[in-house]
Amino acid sequence: MQVIGARINGMFKGVKKAIVDKDAGAIQKLAKAQLDAGAHILDVNVGPAVADAVSAMEWLVNTIREVTPALLAIDSPKTDVLEAGLKAAGESAIINSTTGQKEKLDSILPLAVKYGASIVALTMDEKGIPRDAAARGEIALAIVAAAMEAGIPTDNLYIDPIILPCNVAQPQCPQVLEAIKQVPLLADPKPKTVLGLSNVSQGTQKRELINRTYLVMALAMGLDAAIMDPLDSDLMDAAITAELLLNKHIYCDSFLQAYRK
Amino acid sequence: MQVIGARINGMFKGVKKAIVDKDAGAIQKLAKAQLDAGAHILDVNVGPAVADAVSAMEWLVNTIREVTPALLAIDSPKTDVLEAGLKAAGESAIINSTTGQKEKLDSILPLAVKYGASIVALTMDEKGIPRDAAARGEIALAIVAAAMEAGIPTDNLYIDPIILPCNVAQPQCPQVLEAIKQVPLLADPKPKTVLGLSNVSQGTQKRELINRTYLVMALAMGLDAAIMDPLDSDLMDAAITAELLLNKHIYCDSFLQAYRK
Repeated sequence: MQVIGARINGMFKGVKKAIVDKDAGAIQKLAKAQLDAGAHILDVNVGPAVADAVSAMEWLVNTIREVTPALLAIDSPKTDVLEAGLKAAGESAIINSTTGQKEKLDSILPLAVKYGASIVALTMDEKGIPRDAAARGEIALAIVAAAMEAGIPTDNLYIDPIILPCNVAQPQCPQVLEAIKQVPLLADPKPKTVLGLSNVSQGTQKRELINRTYLVMALAMGLDAAIMDPLDSDLMDAAITAELLLNKHIYCDSFLQAYRK
Repeated sequence: MQVIGARINGMFKGVKKAIVDKDAGAIQKLAKAQLDAGAHILDVNVGPAVADAVSAMEWLVNTIREVTPALLAIDSPKTDVLEAGLKAAGESAIINSTTGQKEKLDSILPLAVKYGASIVALTMDEKGIPRDAAARGEIALAIVAAAMEAGIPTDNLYIDPIILPCNVAQPQCPQVLEAIKQVPLLADPKPKTVLGLSNVSQGTQKRELINRTYLVMALAMGLDAAIMDPLDSDLMDAAITAELLLNKHIYCDSFLQAYRK
Protein backbone atom coordinates (compact mmCIF):
# COMPACT_ATOMS: atom_id res chain seq x y z
CA MET A 1 0.00 0.00 0.00
CA GLN A 2 0.95 3.64 -0.27
CA VAL A 3 0.98 5.42 3.07
CA ILE A 4 0.10 9.10 2.61
CA GLY A 5 1.30 10.88 5.74
CA ALA A 6 -1.46 13.14 7.06
CA ARG A 7 0.46 15.15 9.63
CA ILE A 8 1.43 18.28 7.68
CA ASN A 9 -1.95 19.91 8.01
CA GLY A 10 -2.66 23.37 9.36
CA MET A 11 -5.64 22.04 11.29
CA PHE A 12 -3.05 20.70 13.77
CA LYS A 13 -2.02 23.42 16.21
CA GLY A 14 1.74 22.83 15.93
CA VAL A 15 1.66 22.91 12.13
CA LYS A 16 -0.46 26.05 12.08
CA LYS A 17 2.02 27.74 14.37
CA ALA A 18 4.94 26.62 12.18
CA ILE A 19 3.22 28.09 9.12
CA VAL A 20 2.52 31.40 10.85
CA ASP A 21 6.07 31.60 12.27
CA LYS A 22 7.67 30.33 9.04
CA ASP A 23 9.42 27.70 11.17
CA ALA A 24 10.93 25.56 8.39
CA GLY A 25 12.70 23.26 10.84
CA ALA A 26 9.44 22.13 12.46
CA ILE A 27 7.87 21.27 9.10
CA GLN A 28 10.98 19.50 7.83
CA LYS A 29 11.21 17.47 11.02
CA LEU A 30 7.61 16.37 10.58
CA ALA A 31 8.26 15.47 6.94
CA LYS A 32 11.28 13.37 7.81
CA ALA A 33 9.62 11.70 10.79
CA GLN A 34 6.72 10.55 8.63
CA LEU A 35 9.00 9.22 5.90
CA ASP A 36 11.18 7.43 8.47
CA ALA A 37 8.04 5.85 9.93
CA GLY A 38 7.13 4.38 6.55
CA ALA A 39 5.16 7.06 4.68
CA HIS A 40 5.63 7.01 0.88
CA ILE A 41 3.77 10.23 0.13
CA LEU A 42 3.23 13.37 2.21
CA ASP A 43 -0.08 15.20 2.29
CA VAL A 44 0.34 18.97 2.44
CA ASN A 45 -2.55 21.09 3.70
CA VAL A 46 -2.29 24.66 4.96
CA GLY A 47 -5.43 24.26 7.03
CA PRO A 48 -8.62 26.26 7.13
CA ALA A 49 -7.45 29.36 9.00
CA VAL A 50 -4.43 30.72 7.15
CA ALA A 51 -4.53 34.33 5.90
CA ASP A 52 -2.77 33.89 2.54
CA ALA A 53 -3.30 30.23 1.68
CA VAL A 54 -1.58 30.47 -1.72
CA SER A 55 1.73 31.73 -0.36
CA ALA A 56 1.44 29.44 2.68
CA MET A 57 1.15 26.42 0.36
CA GLU A 58 4.07 27.64 -1.71
CA TRP A 59 6.19 28.03 1.40
CA LEU A 60 5.15 24.64 2.80
CA VAL A 61 6.00 22.76 -0.40
CA ASN A 62 9.32 24.58 -0.91
CA THR A 63 10.20 23.90 2.72
CA ILE A 64 9.49 20.18 2.35
CA ARG A 65 11.30 20.03 -1.00
CA GLU A 66 14.49 21.16 0.71
CA VAL A 67 14.66 17.86 2.60
CA THR A 68 12.94 15.26 0.39
CA PRO A 69 11.97 14.51 -3.22
CA ALA A 70 9.01 12.42 -1.95
CA LEU A 71 5.72 12.48 -3.81
CA LEU A 72 3.41 15.14 -2.33
CA ALA A 73 -0.37 15.21 -2.13
CA ILE A 74 -1.33 18.85 -2.48
CA ASP A 75 -4.45 19.17 -0.36
CA SER A 76 -6.83 22.09 -0.61
CA PRO A 77 -10.43 22.85 -1.52
CA LYS A 78 -9.21 25.87 -3.54
CA THR A 79 -7.94 25.62 -7.09
CA ASP A 80 -5.46 28.49 -6.79
CA VAL A 81 -3.93 26.94 -3.67
CA LEU A 82 -3.68 23.59 -5.44
CA GLU A 83 -1.96 25.18 -8.42
CA ALA A 84 0.54 27.00 -6.20
CA GLY A 85 1.41 23.67 -4.58
CA LEU A 86 1.68 21.81 -7.89
CA LYS A 87 3.98 24.47 -9.33
CA ALA A 88 6.27 24.32 -6.32
CA ALA A 89 6.21 20.51 -6.03
CA GLY A 90 7.83 19.98 -9.42
CA GLU A 91 7.43 16.93 -11.57
CA SER A 92 4.97 14.64 -9.89
CA ALA A 93 2.31 15.32 -7.34
CA ILE A 94 -1.18 14.29 -6.36
CA ILE A 95 -4.10 16.70 -6.33
CA ASN A 96 -6.19 16.22 -3.19
CA SER A 97 -8.99 16.43 -4.22
CA THR A 98 -11.84 16.57 -6.66
CA THR A 99 -15.35 15.17 -6.32
CA GLY A 100 -17.77 13.97 -8.98
CA GLN A 101 -19.36 17.45 -9.14
CA LYS A 102 -19.20 18.80 -12.68
CA GLU A 103 -17.94 22.19 -11.62
CA LYS A 104 -15.17 20.63 -9.56
CA LEU A 105 -14.11 18.22 -12.33
CA ASP A 106 -14.09 21.12 -14.82
CA SER A 107 -11.53 22.97 -12.73
CA ILE A 108 -9.44 20.07 -11.40
CA LEU A 109 -9.02 17.82 -14.44
CA PRO A 110 -7.30 20.50 -16.58
CA LEU A 111 -4.99 21.18 -13.63
CA ALA A 112 -4.06 17.47 -13.48
CA VAL A 113 -3.35 17.46 -17.22
CA LYS A 114 -1.27 20.64 -17.04
CA TYR A 115 0.95 19.32 -14.23
CA GLY A 116 0.86 15.59 -15.04
CA ALA A 117 -0.59 15.07 -11.59
CA SER A 118 -2.56 12.20 -10.13
CA ILE A 119 -5.89 13.00 -8.44
CA VAL A 120 -7.70 11.94 -5.30
CA ALA A 121 -11.38 11.87 -6.28
CA LEU A 122 -14.11 11.62 -3.67
CA THR A 123 -17.27 9.71 -4.57
CA MET A 124 -19.69 12.53 -3.88
CA ASP A 125 -21.57 14.79 -6.21
CA GLU A 126 -24.25 17.50 -6.30
CA LYS A 127 -26.50 15.26 -4.21
CA GLY A 128 -23.89 14.73 -1.48
CA ILE A 129 -22.35 11.50 -0.21
CA PRO A 130 -24.23 8.38 -1.32
CA ARG A 131 -25.49 5.84 1.14
CA ASP A 132 -24.27 2.59 -0.38
CA ALA A 133 -21.55 0.91 -2.40
CA ALA A 134 -23.47 0.88 -5.67
CA ALA A 135 -24.10 4.64 -5.67
CA ARG A 136 -20.46 5.24 -4.77
CA GLY A 137 -19.53 3.05 -7.75
CA GLU A 138 -21.76 5.11 -10.06
CA ILE A 139 -20.05 8.35 -9.09
CA ALA A 140 -16.64 6.69 -9.37
CA LEU A 141 -17.54 5.58 -12.87
CA ALA A 142 -18.57 9.12 -13.84
CA ILE A 143 -15.24 10.40 -12.52
CA VAL A 144 -13.34 7.71 -14.42
CA ALA A 145 -15.19 8.62 -17.63
CA ALA A 146 -14.46 12.32 -17.18
CA ALA A 147 -10.78 11.58 -16.52
CA MET A 148 -10.51 9.40 -19.64
CA GLU A 149 -12.12 12.12 -21.71
CA ALA A 150 -9.58 14.61 -20.34
CA GLY A 151 -6.76 12.24 -21.31
CA ILE A 152 -5.79 11.32 -17.75
CA PRO A 153 -4.59 7.70 -17.33
CA THR A 154 -7.15 5.89 -15.15
CA ASP A 155 -4.45 4.60 -12.83
CA ASN A 156 -3.62 8.20 -12.00
CA LEU A 157 -6.94 8.31 -10.15
CA TYR A 158 -7.15 7.59 -6.43
CA ILE A 159 -10.86 7.01 -5.88
CA ASP A 160 -11.87 7.75 -2.27
CA PRO A 161 -15.23 6.15 -1.41
CA ILE A 162 -15.48 8.39 1.70
CA ILE A 163 -15.59 6.62 5.01
CA LEU A 164 -17.83 8.41 7.51
CA PRO A 165 -17.58 8.22 11.31
CA CYS A 166 -18.78 4.83 12.52
CA ASN A 167 -20.70 6.41 15.37
CA VAL A 168 -22.99 8.35 13.02
CA ALA A 169 -23.04 6.27 9.79
CA GLN A 170 -22.20 2.74 10.93
CA PRO A 171 -24.12 0.91 8.14
CA GLN A 172 -21.89 2.66 5.61
CA CYS A 173 -18.69 1.11 6.96
CA PRO A 174 -19.19 -2.25 5.18
CA GLN A 175 -20.55 -0.39 2.13
CA VAL A 176 -17.26 1.45 1.76
CA LEU A 177 -15.38 -1.87 2.01
CA GLU A 178 -17.58 -3.18 -0.79
CA ALA A 179 -16.87 -0.06 -2.86
CA ILE A 180 -13.12 -0.65 -2.44
CA LYS A 181 -13.58 -4.06 -4.06
CA GLN A 182 -15.56 -2.63 -6.97
CA VAL A 183 -13.50 0.41 -7.99
CA PRO A 184 -10.63 -1.52 -9.66
CA LEU A 185 -13.19 -3.19 -11.94
CA LEU A 186 -14.25 0.14 -13.43
CA ALA A 187 -11.41 0.61 -15.92
CA ASP A 188 -8.17 -0.76 -17.28
CA PRO A 189 -5.61 0.27 -16.10
CA LYS A 190 -7.28 0.01 -12.71
CA PRO A 191 -8.13 3.17 -10.82
CA LYS A 192 -6.51 3.12 -7.37
CA THR A 193 -8.44 3.34 -4.11
CA VAL A 194 -7.65 5.57 -1.14
CA LEU A 195 -9.24 6.36 2.22
CA GLY A 196 -9.05 9.36 4.52
CA LEU A 197 -8.73 6.88 7.34
CA SER A 198 -9.10 8.84 10.55
CA ASN A 199 -12.61 9.94 9.60
CA VAL A 200 -13.92 6.47 10.49
CA SER A 201 -13.22 7.07 14.19
CA GLN A 202 -14.11 10.76 14.44
CA GLY A 203 -15.89 11.41 17.73
CA THR A 204 -15.37 7.90 19.11
CA GLN A 205 -13.49 6.94 22.25
CA LYS A 206 -11.31 4.23 20.69
CA ARG A 207 -9.89 6.11 17.74
CA GLU A 208 -6.63 4.20 17.24
CA LEU A 209 -8.24 0.77 17.59
CA ILE A 210 -11.02 1.67 15.15
CA ASN A 211 -8.58 3.24 12.68
CA ARG A 212 -6.25 0.25 12.53
CA THR A 213 -9.03 -2.34 12.46
CA TYR A 214 -10.75 -0.61 9.57
CA LEU A 215 -7.48 -0.16 7.70
CA VAL A 216 -6.70 -3.89 7.96
CA MET A 217 -10.15 -4.79 6.61
CA ALA A 218 -9.79 -2.27 3.78
CA LEU A 219 -6.38 -3.71 2.88
CA ALA A 220 -7.96 -7.18 2.75
CA MET A 221 -10.39 -5.71 0.19
CA GLY A 222 -7.48 -4.42 -1.91
CA LEU A 223 -7.12 -0.81 -0.75
CA ASP A 224 -4.16 0.85 -2.51
CA ALA A 225 -3.47 3.88 -0.32
CA ALA A 226 -4.55 5.64 2.84
CA ILE A 227 -4.16 9.16 4.12
CA MET A 228 -3.20 8.31 7.69
CA ASP A 229 -0.86 9.01 10.56
CA PRO A 230 2.39 7.08 10.04
CA LEU A 231 3.55 8.21 13.49
CA ASP A 232 0.86 5.98 15.03
CA SER A 233 3.17 2.99 15.29
CA ASP A 234 0.42 0.49 16.16
CA LEU A 235 -1.39 1.59 13.00
CA MET A 236 1.74 1.14 10.91
CA ASP A 237 2.41 -2.27 12.52
CA ALA A 238 -1.13 -3.35 11.62
CA ALA A 239 -0.76 -2.16 8.02
CA ILE A 240 2.63 -3.83 7.59
CA THR A 241 1.34 -7.09 9.08
CA ALA A 242 -1.77 -7.05 6.89
CA GLU A 243 0.38 -6.67 3.80
CA LEU A 244 2.64 -9.47 5.01
CA LEU A 245 -0.38 -11.76 5.36
CA LEU A 246 -1.57 -10.72 1.90
CA ASN A 247 1.84 -11.93 0.66
CA LYS A 248 2.85 -8.45 -0.52
CA HIS A 249 6.28 -8.54 1.12
CA ILE A 250 8.33 -11.48 2.26
CA TYR A 251 8.32 -12.77 5.83
CA CYS A 252 11.35 -12.41 8.03
CA ASP A 253 11.38 -12.36 11.82
CA SER A 254 12.03 -8.61 11.79
CA PHE A 255 9.44 -7.82 9.11
CA LEU A 256 8.21 -4.71 10.94
CA GLN A 257 11.64 -3.10 10.93
CA ALA A 258 12.48 -4.38 7.44
CA TYR A 259 9.45 -2.56 5.99
CA ARG A 260 10.38 0.75 7.58
CA LYS A 261 13.93 0.71 6.19
CA MET B 1 -18.72 -14.31 14.88
CA GLN B 2 -18.56 -17.29 17.17
CA VAL B 3 -15.51 -17.30 19.40
CA ILE B 4 -14.45 -20.87 20.19
CA GLY B 5 -12.23 -20.68 23.28
CA ALA B 6 -9.05 -22.69 22.68
CA ARG B 7 -7.62 -22.76 26.17
CA ILE B 8 -8.92 -26.08 27.53
CA ASN B 9 -6.33 -28.17 25.76
CA GLY B 10 -3.99 -30.69 27.34
CA MET B 11 -1.12 -29.43 25.22
CA PHE B 12 -0.98 -26.51 27.67
CA LYS B 13 1.04 -27.48 30.75
CA GLY B 14 -1.45 -26.16 33.31
CA VAL B 15 -4.38 -27.97 31.68
CA LYS B 16 -2.43 -31.20 31.43
CA LYS B 17 -1.60 -30.98 35.12
CA ALA B 18 -5.26 -30.29 35.98
CA ILE B 19 -6.32 -33.37 34.00
CA VAL B 20 -3.74 -35.60 35.70
CA ASP B 21 -4.56 -34.21 39.16
CA LYS B 22 -8.32 -34.19 38.49
CA ASP B 23 -8.31 -30.53 39.55
CA ALA B 24 -11.89 -29.62 38.61
CA GLY B 25 -11.54 -26.09 39.99
CA ALA B 26 -8.72 -25.20 37.60
CA ILE B 27 -10.68 -26.37 34.56
CA GLN B 28 -13.88 -24.67 35.68
CA LYS B 29 -12.02 -21.44 36.27
CA LEU B 30 -10.59 -21.59 32.75
CA ALA B 31 -14.05 -22.31 31.33
CA LYS B 32 -15.61 -19.36 33.11
CA ALA B 33 -12.75 -17.00 32.32
CA GLN B 34 -13.09 -17.71 28.59
CA LEU B 35 -16.87 -17.25 28.63
CA ASP B 36 -16.53 -14.01 30.61
CA ALA B 37 -14.00 -12.78 28.05
CA GLY B 38 -16.51 -13.28 25.24
CA ALA B 39 -16.21 -16.92 24.12
CA HIS B 40 -19.45 -18.48 22.86
CA ILE B 41 -18.18 -22.04 22.54
CA LEU B 42 -15.46 -23.92 24.43
CA ASP B 43 -13.07 -26.28 22.68
CA VAL B 44 -12.23 -29.34 24.81
CA ASN B 45 -9.08 -31.30 24.02
CA VAL B 46 -7.33 -33.71 26.38
CA GLY B 47 -4.03 -33.21 24.59
CA PRO B 48 -1.64 -35.69 23.03
CA ALA B 49 -0.05 -37.19 26.14
CA VAL B 50 -2.86 -38.43 28.36
CA ALA B 51 -2.90 -42.09 29.41
CA ASP B 52 -6.64 -42.81 29.18
CA ALA B 53 -7.93 -40.21 26.73
CA VAL B 54 -11.51 -41.53 26.77
CA SER B 55 -12.00 -41.17 30.49
CA ALA B 56 -10.04 -37.90 30.52
CA MET B 57 -12.44 -36.43 27.94
CA GLU B 58 -15.42 -37.69 29.92
CA TRP B 59 -14.07 -36.08 33.07
CA LEU B 60 -13.25 -32.80 31.31
CA VAL B 61 -16.70 -32.44 29.78
CA ASN B 62 -18.52 -33.39 33.00
CA THR B 63 -16.35 -30.93 34.91
CA ILE B 64 -17.17 -28.10 32.49
CA ARG B 65 -20.86 -29.04 32.44
CA GLU B 66 -21.04 -28.43 36.19
CA VAL B 67 -20.49 -24.71 35.60
CA THR B 68 -21.90 -23.93 32.14
CA PRO B 69 -24.37 -25.17 29.52
CA ALA B 70 -22.23 -23.55 26.79
CA LEU B 71 -21.81 -25.28 23.45
CA LEU B 72 -18.68 -27.45 23.46
CA ALA B 73 -16.38 -28.37 20.61
CA ILE B 74 -15.18 -31.89 21.36
CA ASP B 75 -11.67 -31.96 19.95
CA SER B 76 -9.78 -35.19 19.31
CA PRO B 77 -8.26 -37.15 16.44
CA LYS B 78 -9.78 -40.35 17.93
CA THR B 79 -13.35 -41.42 17.31
CA ASP B 80 -13.80 -43.12 20.68
CA VAL B 81 -12.61 -40.00 22.51
CA LEU B 82 -14.97 -37.87 20.43
CA GLU B 83 -17.89 -40.16 21.24
CA ALA B 84 -17.10 -40.07 24.97
CA GLY B 85 -17.17 -36.27 24.81
CA LEU B 86 -20.38 -36.11 22.79
CA LYS B 87 -22.15 -38.47 25.22
CA ALA B 88 -21.11 -36.38 28.20
CA ALA B 89 -21.82 -33.02 26.55
CA GLY B 90 -25.53 -33.69 26.17
CA GLU B 91 -27.77 -32.15 23.57
CA SER B 92 -25.63 -30.06 21.28
CA ALA B 93 -21.95 -30.16 20.56
CA ILE B 94 -19.47 -29.71 17.76
CA ILE B 95 -17.18 -32.49 16.59
CA ASN B 96 -13.67 -31.18 16.05
CA SER B 97 -12.82 -32.54 13.52
CA THR B 98 -13.10 -34.49 10.31
CA THR B 99 -11.19 -34.01 7.07
CA GLY B 100 -12.21 -34.79 3.49
CA GLN B 101 -10.54 -38.23 3.75
CA LYS B 102 -13.07 -40.94 3.00
CA GLU B 103 -12.10 -43.06 5.99
CA LYS B 104 -12.46 -40.08 8.32
CA LEU B 105 -15.84 -39.02 6.88
CA ASP B 106 -17.07 -42.62 7.17
CA SER B 107 -16.40 -42.61 10.91
CA ILE B 108 -17.29 -39.00 11.80
CA LEU B 109 -20.48 -38.34 9.81
CA PRO B 110 -22.46 -41.18 11.48
CA LEU B 111 -21.29 -39.86 14.85
CA ALA B 112 -22.62 -36.39 13.97
CA VAL B 113 -25.96 -37.89 12.94
CA LYS B 114 -26.20 -40.01 16.09
CA TYR B 115 -25.59 -37.05 18.43
CA GLY B 116 -27.11 -34.26 16.31
CA ALA B 117 -23.71 -32.60 16.38
CA SER B 118 -22.17 -29.99 14.14
CA ILE B 119 -18.76 -30.73 12.61
CA VAL B 120 -15.54 -28.85 12.03
CA ALA B 121 -14.24 -30.16 8.69
CA LEU B 122 -10.69 -29.44 7.54
CA THR B 123 -10.10 -29.00 3.81
CA MET B 124 -7.47 -31.71 3.48
CA ASP B 125 -7.66 -35.19 2.03
CA GLU B 126 -5.54 -38.21 1.14
CA LYS B 127 -3.17 -35.91 -0.77
CA GLY B 128 -2.66 -33.57 2.19
CA ILE B 129 -3.34 -29.83 2.46
CA PRO B 130 -3.93 -28.15 -0.89
CA ARG B 131 -1.90 -25.17 -2.00
CA ASP B 132 -4.61 -22.77 -3.14
CA ALA B 133 -8.15 -21.57 -2.63
CA ALA B 134 -9.65 -23.51 -5.54
CA ALA B 135 -8.35 -26.87 -4.32
CA ARG B 136 -9.57 -26.08 -0.81
CA GLY B 137 -12.98 -25.33 -2.33
CA GLU B 138 -13.01 -28.69 -4.12
CA ILE B 139 -12.41 -30.60 -0.90
CA ALA B 140 -14.97 -28.46 0.91
CA LEU B 141 -17.49 -29.32 -1.78
CA ALA B 142 -16.77 -33.04 -1.38
CA ILE B 143 -17.31 -32.70 2.37
CA VAL B 144 -20.57 -30.79 1.83
CA ALA B 145 -21.80 -33.49 -0.56
CA ALA B 146 -20.92 -36.27 1.89
CA ALA B 147 -22.68 -34.42 4.72
CA MET B 148 -25.82 -33.90 2.63
CA GLU B 149 -25.85 -37.57 1.73
CA ALA B 150 -25.59 -38.42 5.43
CA GLY B 151 -28.55 -36.13 6.16
CA ILE B 152 -26.54 -33.49 8.01
CA PRO B 153 -27.78 -29.90 7.47
CA THR B 154 -25.09 -28.01 5.55
CA ASP B 155 -25.11 -25.16 8.07
CA ASN B 156 -24.03 -27.67 10.71
CA LEU B 157 -20.68 -27.76 8.93
CA TYR B 158 -17.81 -25.51 10.00
CA ILE B 159 -15.43 -25.70 7.06
CA ASP B 160 -11.85 -24.96 8.12
CA PRO B 161 -9.65 -24.01 5.13
CA ILE B 162 -6.51 -24.59 7.26
CA ILE B 163 -4.29 -21.60 7.76
CA LEU B 164 -0.61 -22.56 7.88
CA PRO B 165 2.18 -20.61 9.60
CA CYS B 166 2.97 -17.46 7.63
CA ASN B 167 6.69 -18.00 8.04
CA VAL B 168 6.60 -21.30 6.15
CA ALA B 169 3.60 -20.99 3.81
CA GLN B 170 3.13 -17.26 3.33
CA PRO B 171 1.58 -17.43 -0.18
CA GLN B 172 -1.24 -19.52 1.30
CA CYS B 173 -2.39 -16.77 3.67
CA PRO B 174 -4.34 -14.84 1.01
CA GLN B 175 -5.49 -18.16 -0.51
CA VAL B 176 -7.20 -19.07 2.75
CA LEU B 177 -8.89 -15.65 2.82
CA GLU B 178 -10.17 -16.35 -0.68
CA ALA B 179 -11.42 -19.78 0.42
CA ILE B 180 -13.36 -18.15 3.27
CA LYS B 181 -15.22 -16.08 0.68
CA GLN B 182 -16.03 -19.12 -1.46
CA VAL B 183 -17.24 -21.67 1.11
CA PRO B 184 -20.65 -20.05 1.78
CA LEU B 185 -21.42 -20.29 -1.95
CA LEU B 186 -21.15 -24.10 -1.90
CA ALA B 187 -24.60 -24.93 -0.51
CA ASP B 188 -27.84 -23.56 0.84
CA PRO B 189 -28.10 -23.26 3.81
CA LYS B 190 -24.57 -21.90 3.80
CA PRO B 191 -21.80 -23.95 5.36
CA LYS B 192 -20.03 -21.96 8.07
CA THR B 193 -16.31 -21.15 8.03
CA VAL B 194 -13.89 -21.51 10.92
CA LEU B 195 -10.15 -21.06 11.45
CA GLY B 196 -7.70 -22.53 13.94
CA LEU B 197 -6.29 -19.04 14.26
CA SER B 198 -3.06 -19.36 16.21
CA ASN B 199 -1.55 -21.60 13.56
CA VAL B 200 -0.97 -18.56 11.33
CA SER B 201 1.68 -17.22 13.71
CA GLN B 202 3.31 -20.49 14.80
CA GLY B 203 7.07 -19.99 15.09
CA THR B 204 6.97 -16.22 14.48
CA GLN B 205 8.13 -13.51 16.86
CA LYS B 206 5.00 -11.35 16.67
CA ARG B 207 2.35 -13.93 17.40
CA GLU B 208 -0.37 -11.72 18.89
CA LEU B 209 -0.04 -9.04 16.21
CA ILE B 210 -0.16 -11.60 13.41
CA ASN B 211 -3.10 -13.46 14.98
CA ARG B 212 -5.28 -10.39 15.38
CA THR B 213 -4.41 -8.91 12.01
CA TYR B 214 -5.27 -12.14 10.22
CA LEU B 215 -8.49 -12.54 12.19
CA VAL B 216 -9.65 -9.04 11.23
CA MET B 217 -8.97 -9.75 7.55
CA ALA B 218 -10.76 -13.10 7.77
CA LEU B 219 -13.77 -11.42 9.40
CA ALA B 220 -13.85 -8.91 6.55
CA MET B 221 -14.11 -11.94 4.23
CA GLY B 222 -17.07 -13.26 6.20
CA LEU B 223 -15.47 -15.74 8.62
CA ASP B 224 -18.12 -17.22 10.93
CA ALA B 225 -16.03 -18.64 13.77
CA ALA B 226 -12.48 -18.98 15.07
CA ILE B 227 -10.82 -21.31 17.51
CA MET B 228 -8.79 -18.72 19.38
CA ASP B 229 -7.69 -17.42 22.74
CA PRO B 230 -10.42 -15.20 24.19
CA LEU B 231 -8.08 -14.32 27.08
CA ASP B 232 -5.91 -12.37 24.62
CA SER B 233 -7.77 -9.12 25.18
CA ASP B 234 -6.16 -7.28 22.27
CA LEU B 235 -7.32 -10.11 20.01
CA MET B 236 -10.86 -9.88 21.37
CA ASP B 237 -10.84 -6.08 21.02
CA ALA B 238 -9.80 -6.45 17.39
CA ALA B 239 -12.54 -9.00 16.70
CA ILE B 240 -15.22 -6.91 18.42
CA THR B 241 -14.12 -3.78 16.56
CA ALA B 242 -14.07 -5.59 13.21
CA GLU B 243 -17.63 -6.78 13.76
CA LEU B 244 -18.66 -3.26 14.78
CA LEU B 245 -17.25 -1.91 11.52
CA LEU B 246 -19.03 -4.68 9.59
CA ASN B 247 -22.23 -3.35 11.19
CA LYS B 248 -22.86 -6.61 13.06
CA HIS B 249 -23.54 -4.93 16.41
CA ILE B 250 -24.54 -1.37 17.16
CA TYR B 251 -22.06 1.34 18.09
CA CYS B 252 -21.96 2.79 21.56
CA ASP B 253 -18.98 4.48 23.20
CA SER B 254 -18.44 1.43 25.40
CA PHE B 255 -18.86 -1.11 22.59
CA LEU B 256 -15.96 -3.26 23.81
CA GLN B 257 -17.51 -3.78 27.24
CA ALA B 258 -21.04 -4.06 25.83
CA TYR B 259 -20.01 -7.03 23.69
CA ARG B 260 -18.46 -8.91 26.57
CA LYS B 261 -21.56 -8.62 28.77
